Order: sequence, then structure tokens, then C-alpha cells
Amino acid sequence: MSTATYTVVGMTCSHCVSAVTEEVGGLPGVTEVAVDLPSGGLTVTSDAPVDEGAVRAAVEEAGYEVAGS
Amino acid sequence: MSTATYTVVGMTCSHCVSAVTEEVGGLPGVTEVAVDLPSGGLTVTSDAPVDEGAVRAAVEEAGYEVAGS
Repeated sequence: MSTATYTVVGMTCSHCVSAVTEEVGGLPGVTEVAVDLPSGGLTVTSDAPVDEGAVRAAVEEAGYEVAGS
Repeated sequence: MSTATYTVVGMTCSHCVSAVTEEVGGLPGVTEVAVDLPSGGLTVTSDAPVDEGAVRAAVEEAGYEVAGS
């Protein structure tokens, strides 16, 4: 099992949380997604490590951004 | 045709706008709903006047509030 944490920028409400959770949760191998709205914290749990680029792309697909480069 | 305007409090993003539009748009007789996110403006167009209480209830159902009493 693998866990990775990110910070998502731009979420303002619970609908935003749902959008990110859905997109990231749809990535292959992801078993659990936890999002904290106030901090932007995103925790991704998966069977095997998930490519950071894939997580970033999923967050962007939802309409937000992962902080940092 | 009837048009009424309200101010909605609490919307923060386009998902909020969609939620309000869907709920208010589902009221009987409503033919068009326009929501302006920055101002909170909600314009409801309908065949016949729609009860203000029904509009308020729909906005609350979506998770927001109409300003004023």
C-alpha cells in the first residue's frame, strides 16, 4: 500500500472537494482519497505508488491545481 | 411571463452556481434561471409568478440562502 500527500489550490466549497475526490479516485490503483477543504490537503492511498503527474493531471481535470512544481 | 430577482448568499464557485440553477430551474413554471456568481444575483423567469417562498426553499435545498427576510 502507498500513501502520498499533496496540496490542492483553488477549492472553495464542498462541491470542489467532490470534484477532486472523483477525478483522483478514478485513477487506476487508487483505493482511497481524502481531501481537507480548509488546508487543501489531498491524501491519495493506492495499492502501488501512483505517478505524481497522473495525480496532478486529475486535479487539473477537476479544475484545480496541485501546489509546488 | 414573469421575472423576479434575488440575491443569493454563500456561493463560492461555478459548482455552487450549477447547484442553485438546477434546484431553482426544477420549480414548476420556471423557464429560465440566470445566476451571477460575483454579485450573487439570481434572476428567475417563469410563465406565471413563482412564489418567493418556493424560490427561497429551492436555494436552501441547494445549500445557500436568499438575502433579506
